[in-house]
Amino acid sequence: MDITPGPLLSQISSPDDLKSLRRDQLNQLCDELRQYIIDVVSVHGGHFAASLGVVELTVALHYVFNTPDDQLVWDVGHQAYGHKILTGRRDDFHTNRKYKGISGFPRRAESKYDAFGVGHSSTSISAALGMAIADAYRGDFQKQHIAVIGDGAMTAGLAFEALNHAGVSNANLLIILNDNCMSIDPNVGALKEYLTDITTSPAYNRLKEDVWNLMGKLPVGRKFTRNMASRLETGIKGMVSKSSNLFESLRLRYFGPIDGHNVQKLTDTLQDLKQIPGPKLLHIVTVKGKGYALAEKDQTRWHAPGLFDKMTGEIQKKPVTGPQPPKYQDVFGHTIITLAEQNDRVMGVTPAMPSGSSLKFMMEKMPDRAFDVGICEQHAVTLSAGMATHGLKVFCNIYSTFMQRGYDQVVHDVAIQDLPVIFCLDRAGLVGEDGATHHGAYDIAYMRCLPNMIVSAPMNEAELRNLMYTAQLPSTTHPFVIRYPRGTGVMPEWETPFEEIRIGTGRKIAGGREIAILSYGHPGNFVTEACRELTTDGICPAHYDLRFVKPLDEALLDEVFHSFDKIVTVEDGCIMGGFGSAVLEFMAARGYHAQVKMLGIPDRVIEQGKPEALQHEAGFDPASIAAAVRTMLGVKVKSVVKV
Amino acid sequence: MDITPGPLLSQISSPDDLKSLRRDQLNQLCDELRQYIIDVVSVHGGHFAASLGVVELTVALHYVFNTPDDQLVWDVGHQAYGHKILTGRRDDFHTNRKYKGISGFPRRAESKYDAFGVGHSSTSISAALGMAIADAYRGDFQKQHIAVIGDGAMTAGLAFEALNHAGVSNANLLIILNDNCMSIDPNVGALKEYLTDITTSPAYNRLKEDVWNLMGKLPVGRKFTRNMASRLETGIKGMVSKSSNLFESLRLRYFGPIDGHNVQKLTDTLQDLKQIPGPKLLHIVTVKGKGYALAEKDQTRWHAPGLFDKMTGEIQKKPVTGPQPPKYQDVFGHTIITLAEQNDRVMGVTPAMPSGSSLKFMMEKMPDRAFDVGICEQHAVTLSAGMATHGLKVFCNIYSTFMQRGYDQVVHDVAIQDLPVIFCLDRAGLVGEDGATHHGAYDIAYMRCLPNMIVSAPMNEAELRNLMYTAQLPSTTHPFVIRYPRGTGVMPEWETPFEEIRIGTGRKIAGGREIAILSYGHPGNFVTEACRELTTDGICPAHYDLRFVKPLDEALLDEVFHSFDKIVTVEDGCIMGGFGSAVLEFMAARGYHAQVKMLGIPDRVIEQGKPEALQHEAGFDPASIAAAVRTMLGVKVKSVVKV
Repeated sequence: MDITPGPLLSQISSPDDLKSLRRDQLNQLCDELRQYIIDVVSVHGGHFAASLGVVELTVALHYVFNTPDDQLVWDVGHQAYGHKILTGRRDDFHTNRKYKGISGFPRRAESKYDAFGVGHSSTSISAALGMAIADAYRGDFQKQHIAVIGDGAMTAGLAFEALNHAGVSNANLLIILNDNCMSIDPNVGALKEYLTDITTSPAYNRLKEDVWNLMGKLPVGRKFTRNMASRLETGIKGMVSKSSNLFESLRLRYFGPIDGHNVQKLTDTLQDLKQIPGPKLLHIVTVKGKGYALAEKDQTRWHAPGLFDKMTGEIQKKPVTGPQPPKYQDVFGHTIITLAEQNDRVMGVTPAMPSGSSLKFMMEKMPDRAFDVGICEQHAVTLSAGMATHGLKVFCNIYSTFMQRGYDQVVHDVAIQDLPVIFCLDRAGLVGEDGATHHGAYDIAYMRCLPNMIVSAPMNEAELRNLMYTAQLPSTTHPFVIRYPRGTGVMPEWETPFEEIRIGTGRKIAGGREIAILSYGHPGNFVTEACRELTTDGICPAHYDLRFVKPLDEALLDEVFHSFDKIVTVEDGCIMGGFGSAVLEFMAARGYHAQVKMLGIPDRVIEQGKPEALQHEAGFDPASIAAAVRTMLGVKVKSVVKV
Repeated sequence: MDITPGPLLSQISSPDDLKSLRRDQLNQLCDELRQYIIDVVSVHGGHFAASLGVVELTVALHYVFNTPDDQLVWDVGHQAYGHKILTGRRDDFHTNRKYKGISGFPRRAESKYDAFGVGHSSTSISAALGMAIADAYRGDFQKQHIAVIGDGAMTAGLAFEALNHAGVSNANLLIILNDNCMSIDPNVGALKEYLTDITTSPAYNRLKEDVWNLMGKLPVGRKFTRNMASRLETGIKGMVSKSSNLFESLRLRYFGPIDGHNVQKLTDTLQDLKQIPGPKLLHIVTVKGKGYALAEKDQTRWHAPGLFDKMTGEIQKKPVTGPQPPKYQDVFGHTIITLAEQNDRVMGVTPAMPSGSSLKFMMEKMPDRAFDVGICEQHAVTLSAGMATHGLKVFCNIYSTFMQRGYDQVVHDVAIQDLPVIFCLDRAGLVGEDGATHHGAYDIAYMRCLPNMIVSAPMNEAELRNLMYTAQLPSTTHPFVIRYPRGTGVMPEWETPFEEIRIGTGRKIAGGREIAILSYGHPGNFVTEACRELTTDGICPAHYDLRFVKPLDEALLDEVFHSFDKIVTVEDGCIMGGFGSAVLEFMAARGYHAQVKMLGIPDRVIEQGKPEALQHEAGFDPASIAAAVRTMLGVKVKSVVKV
């Protein structure tokens, strides 16, 4: 499908082209940019509502500032589609998030306009401050360093740490707080309430308006000196009582709140701020999904809706034939409720992913037992540890990639204290279109090295349910990790009765000869598929699902090493230090000798694409597994396995 | 040396005993408690100034609250000596921080009064909130949950994440902000400036005093209802303008600041607060080292001074005979200055450890190139990444155990973007008396699994200097980890000329026969010692210092595996996923077969003690290495190796 940008947007291949527009053309450009995003995302997919919310800001920033010399860091970055389109990637935008296409997030290797690679939230202030300090050290006080950060991202501790430093630096830092009251789900917490207060308080706004007017009287275009800034500040201090604002408490000059959809006002304001040295914060208020009515109304649904008919708003569903397996997420979401109904000690915690994790089902049904704590992974873990000291069985559901953000809390508050917190690591493995920043690649390695941890992965829905059941039993007294991938499992009939799984036990899936394949978690299904293919070549590997990488099933492994001297390990985590490595450690400790081939995520950055394509690239999809088996056995390919 | 507690303290074996004292006896008890801490720490060692600063608070808390039913979480916990002495551990206090003695930090397994194990900073609010939510869920709104947190710990993001949640909860949470302007070094950042502002502003204090007086008029002893709290809040709001305070902005009721050394006032205040439901914060002002003049004057020096003469204040030095090797820390601190003098791109960053890391030398000499960013490891990493985008070579110095707190930033901002940030991981391995929470045990495993990382460890001072030199060369374009232990190295003449080390190359230290020992980092010296002992048995192992766990020296390892079929690996990190595991992965990938014994930190929690004792317990001290070699060779012990 050929999508044509509007007449103004067609002419813009860089911010220089944008700067050649008259100010009175900016409104039209915003309309065209918004329409282009709608046009492309509706047929190619991607994040949607966030970029619509910052169309005016994006245009104003590139109109006013001298990017890429002035440096622009988009926090998280799923709102940077407009930025990408205006900075030379308009005609590549249809490849967004696709295999070998452009990334769904800013990425340094992709464009000089992407000052910092992002994906996870709340890094922008620290990164921009680092750049500002580097320029200050070099004596360059001309450049501006801009962090655009949402109110959701502002709840994460990293953002606060950066504010604490920024307030006492003299670096040229402009923080733009994009306040839309949303993370993917509605934002939560005291900060959100505070921002709502200050944007709705008439008295406060009057006061700020006065400050604003004073600003307006400044001779725009003249270089703003440090001395002038200081005098202005004294003026402001006179009008706004000391420490009257949370950000001013932290020594940042605070401006706003202003309407983030008024491109003219934004342009004026940014022109003024450009001339004010030092750290400062502009608070703008925007609507996520702005300009697409359905998205404005249901912002969570339209965060990343998939493909849709842009005229009717109808979201495409995959064609369904017969009963389908559920998403692992939904199995988690429904199973925790069943367990909670049977066990009053079961609780749920998520850091800002109630919809993504499906914990929202429990939050709706049992609001006193399931909590969204905001984009606060560290807090989510230590809070869960605190609850565990009181005998509660907390399912702390965190995406594998975000678990990295609470790692010390896992080590220090959970593992060392041996508290039986249950970590459900969602979106483990190669997640697909979100790409490098979001793959859940390292958790097997960074979790299994911690003492007291039980580390597991289900091969299917029934296993997930049984692992969850086992984890919350009174007899389970250690921290318990359960990792599973994004998306559907393999069992349409998933509501199986609960069965306890003896901790540290695996399963023999299939007997065989000559070679054994050991798998961990969902990729066991890839092994099953590979074995089917290999049968046509007369090869019949044995297949074991280890289920626990810690503790390992030593009896099962003894059986394997006694019976086989060729072994393939398969996992959807990094090979270094992962499941295969644990098998090698066992082999060394027991003094076994075998030829072991480890399949998993290799030691390099894997970008975005469909999971199947990435698994093939990484070398652990069914075809790759079959190929590895053939190679080990010295058998030439007879059948062809489709990717 | 027999140390006798004072007459009141002698009678106190639990908080119940404390509660039987009259209020007018509390001052004397504080004096006795302070004296006892001075008496014991001066001869047995330990943290010093922090506990002196909270003597009055400790007494008041246990006098007013019903511990352990009311739950008391000490942030970090090195200030909890008074708490330990008052809760049944007075007579064990001389074993503090010693092998098999009591821990230097609160520890759940040690006492029911230690509600939460601590060591790292800023966990207390989250943990106490988790306990409060657990009690609220059970319908128990009587219990108080108290987090005592310093102004330094309050700068960490985790604390802010917890405040963001606490402010919108209705849990019974009392946060006591112990404001002494200090971390180990002086506290830094905007929050510190803000706290200084509000404690020194006469207008503000007058306003608060009014609120305070209103509080004073409340009928103490009568149960404070939610309704009364709400009316009081309205009154406060009338006097103190909306959002006038940072903590009130976050919806916490704020009380204070009050003098934290006035035990009577503290007792009164806590009595009042005990009856106010919901989340609240009491700001107290204390002096770290209070009551010991020298400690009050030089709080960093007296944070943990070692043994000293309590009368003269003279700090014991170890007897010195001849030239001594320097501390690795000082080698780092001096070397970075030399490098910075030669290379204007070299910068330094530390999260709150300028003295501990010795970055303070550079901060003093080059204040525009070396930064203490507060207890903000996440920010330290992403800030360094931001600086690295501008071509700077940032040495980000973080203790191994605290690197866990910035893990996602290492993955997401440094490794995936392949930015050449240099991480100097200080205090790697078993750190000694600080114990379980502070061992740098996991970094080899959690760093080597990340793409693009160069991961190294020097065996001595010259190697540290050369690794630092190599890391900052323009030709080094990847992130670079250098890990080294706490304390002294092995080279009195340490100021060797710089030599580039080819990345991924190890060294043969000693040729030998029958068996090869592969070591990584400082424990290579243990191997040297073990080999000396083994010589007397006629055993002569080859010894290789791998120096890089990533990339591995494949040529050197080929040589090893071609020459030996018995191999011992030695590291001071966790065995699971660590250096030995990397060697096994190499062996499997190359198809070598050898018997490999891995020595390092085993898969359990190691507590405190002298490093040598802990290394022996873990099984990688010289004696253990020698024993492992003998076992592999089937040789009986002839010589006796001293531990």
